[in-house]
Amino acid sequence: MVTDPAAPEDAPEEAVYDLDADLAGGVVRALAEGRAGRVRDLIQPLHYADVADLLERLSPDERTALLDVIADDFDADVLSELDDTVRDEIIDHMGPDDLATAVAGLESDDAFHIIEELDGEERRRVLDAIPGAERALIEEGLAYPDDSAGRLMQRELVSVPAYWTVGRTIDFMRADSEGLPEVFYDIFVVDPRHRPLGSIPLSRLLRTKRPIGVTDIMETEMKLIPVATDQEDVAFLFRQRDLVSAPVVDEGGRLVGAITVDDVVDVIHEEHEEDIMHLGGVPVDDLYSAAVDTMRSRFPWLLVNLATAILASATIGLFEATIEQMVALAVLMPIVASMGGNAGTQTMTVAVRALATKELTSTNALRVIGKELIVGGFNGILFAVITGLVAWLWFADPTLAVVLAMAMIVNMVVAGLAGTTIPIVLERAGKDPAIASGVFLTTMTDVIGFFTFLGLAAWLLL
Amino acid sequence: MVTDPAAPEDAPEEAVYDLDADLAGGVVRALAEGRAGRVRDLIQPLHYADVADLLERLSPDERTALLDVIADDFDADVLSELDDTVRDEIIDHMGPDDLATAVAGLESDDAFHIIEELDGEERRRVLDAIPGAERALIEEGLAYPDDSAGRLMQRELVSVPAYWTVGRTIDFMRADSEGLPEVFYDIFVVDPRHRPLGSIPLSRLLRTKRPIGVTDIMETEMKLIPVATDQEDVAFLFRQRDLVSAPVVDEGGRLVGAITVDDVVDVIHEEHEEDIMHLGGVPVDDLYSAAVDTMRSRFPWLLVNLATAILASATIGLFEATIEQMVALAVLMPIVASMGGNAGTQTMTVAVRALATKELTSTNALRVIGKELIVGGFNGILFAVITGLVAWLWFADPTLAVVLAMAMIVNMVVAGLAGTTIPIVLERAGKDPAIASGVFLTTMTDVIGFFTFLGLAAWLLL
Repeated sequence: MVTDPAAPEDAPEEAVYDLDADLAGGVVRALAEGRAGRVRDLIQPLHYADVADLLERLSPDERTALLDVIADDFDADVLSELDDTVRDEIIDHMGPDDLATAVAGLESDDAFHIIEELDGEERRRVLDAIPGAERALIEEGLAYPDDSAGRLMQRELVSVPAYWTVGRTIDFMRADSEGLPEVFYDIFVVDPRHRPLGSIPLSRLLRTKRPIGVTDIMETEMKLIPVATDQEDVAFLFRQRDLVSAPVVDEGGRLVGAITVDDVVDVIHEEHEEDIMHLGGVPVDDLYSAAVDTMRSRFPWLLVNLATAILASATIGLFEATIEQMVALAVLMPIVASMGGNAGTQTMTVAVRALATKELTSTNALRVIGKELIVGGFNGILFAVITGLVAWLWFADPTLAVVLAMAMIVNMVVAGLAGTTIPIVLERAGKDPAIASGVFLTTMTDVIGFFTFLGLAAWLLL
Repeated sequence: MVTDPAAPEDAPEEAVYDLDADLAGGVVRALAEGRAGRVRDLIQPLHYADVADLLERLSPDERTALLDVIADDFDADVLSELDDTVRDEIIDHMGPDDLATAVAGLESDDAFHIIEELDGEERRRVLDAIPGAERALIEEGLAYPDDSAGRLMQRELVSVPAYWTVGRTIDFMRADSEGLPEVFYDIFVVDPRHRPLGSIPLSRLLRTKRPIGVTDIMETEMKLIPVATDQEDVAFLFRQRDLVSAPVVDEGGRLVGAITVDDVVDVIHEEHEEDIMHLGGVPVDDLYSAAVDTMRSRFPWLLVNLATAILASATIGLFEATIEQMVALAVLMPIVASMGGNAGTQTMTVAVRALATKELTSTNALRVIGKELIVGGFNGILFAVITGLVAWLWFADPTLAVVLAMAMIVNMVVAGLAGTTIPIVLERAGKDPAIASGVFLTTMTDVIGFFTFLGLAAWLLL
């Protein structure tokens, strides 16, 4: 079994993925024609991650058809790679017994990630199908809070006492090769109470001569992660320190597990996904949801926005008499609100990101707010000049142009101030700034934009 | 040197980071008081990533003051961890000679990442200060395109011929321990023409008995990454396959380097940062830029948005006569535009994300668009009812309420359609959908929102 060394020469640059559109199309066609054998031939050589991808891209009907065709040699690893909505659908289709059989064949941490998503009766039935020792580990893991280091870590790890040598460590691993985790990157040196003293990257162990003691080559500058640590903080630490694995300790400081970077990559991805979706006003995992679920999940956000839109309208309503006398105001007023909204969104995006990456802190908050006020003020002046000229040319009314320009400056400064302070205040209040900042921001820039423009117009023009 | 095993017991849960606000405050105070010794005492125990963090949080003046105090034992690893803007500032402050000395002490791939950011004369001077063999490696690396696998990979790796045994491989590593990369996770088995045949995770090598051949334990189901592959695709592959390292091959299929997951984590982070910033209309790395640079970088986006705002105003301008007869229209019209914009942004956010993660493809594009039309239509009907009732209560005019409701349905459907098709079309055209989708989308929802509402009003009400 040898990879074909000629492949990279012939393959186009994009060939990093196995799964191309042709393949997906081929599977869909073969399913439609009822050629089960052909479908199996197409699926067989695929990596489980690609099978997961393929399942996600199919319509719900095609999905169940494909599942029925490949049911006999279904690789449960596929489940770990699926998007939540699709996974739930497939788990429902499989039923608890088939699921239990499939999950029992997985590595304990992969099994764990599937089981933690199940609830009540389903979880019970799947757990019962898993052999005793592994089930105990999984049940212990389920006791840790959601999204904590305890949920993320794998329980199997290699730890050795401080008096061992490199040679003895290697011999131990060769002798007990069955009991070792499938993949690991560091060996942990522990004291008699099983508290970590240091870690040794495998590449260091391998280059060291047998008689040397493990304490002589261990890294002691390591971070111990308490089991209760939030997974977002774990991800931050891994990225910050370029870690590949890290020891997890319980309240007594005892080594209870290790987190490896592949799980952290998934967390980083999830957290980013959440941030982007929240900024866009969408719950996560939306692409594969049924239309009715998508509708329902997006509705509340739109309703909140309707409330702010009505607030903005009410602000305009205060000036009905003014608009009646000068309709040009109705034509120009969206410009002030829209520019404020856009400038505020720029500022808010930077602030929300900087809060998420812990770059915006109490040390520099005032400086950042100060800077945004300056930026808002200067860009406000620039756009005041531009929009003032546009309004003057359009309506040939210099006072109207001045009113527009003044409102523009006010609203851009408000945008800079609100774009930074709203996320900071929400973060301080323990809320996720990505979710709520946008509504507060547009409410402010709309209401203040309309109010300043129409108010100045009422005062100066009429 | 042993870590204090009691530490995790006493430490609060957030103590995963060394750098807390108190420390930053302490450094700032000590700097202000001119107590250089105190500053050094505070900095000395910090990890280089924390020193980088601290530097980022300080004001430019504090930053140069701190740099001057710690200049003598400045750890060049700090540079790799800094945000671009701050790094440029510090590199300017250090001058090329100090920089060259600092960089020469780094691992070749870290040195590489700093040098690739420099230009012309500065790059020349720093390169000249680096010893011959390492300089040659770095210069070769600089020949690869920006953001390619060639730039990301480390050139040092461990490869062994197919006829070696586990024992011989370990002996080789012990004998040539100086020539090995600092950290590595896989060993690559190559053919006589140096083309990769398979890879062996170190944890597997360590658990295998000495006489066993490397080909017996190697993994052959590995992905070969062509040097020219875009780093975004590399990141996708690592996440998809839970990789920790992967072999990079040249056009002839020969092994030229290996990419490790720590660099990929940085890429994932960068790419996400870019997506979020682009969706918010901001260039990356904005927090630390000087106010004038921030102003300049945000201006073009605001200018584009001004153009779309003026287009929306022009649409309203078509109906000046209509508004003159019924000012309530001016009060209500922003509701239609705003709801369309928000619904469209939700849809667009999902589509842009799904395109970035390759979940939205030609296989499912039509289905996704269809679903969004349904979602838009149904949410449109719901909000038509709600806003219609509001308008009726507010202005006691049932026809006005019907006009608002009808415009709402039209604009929500347009939002669903535009929110999916705009990103897909931009992606097909080779543009980054995160950057431009928003402008096109709000232009459509504003123009169509105002036009439908005012047009229907002109037709039905007057």
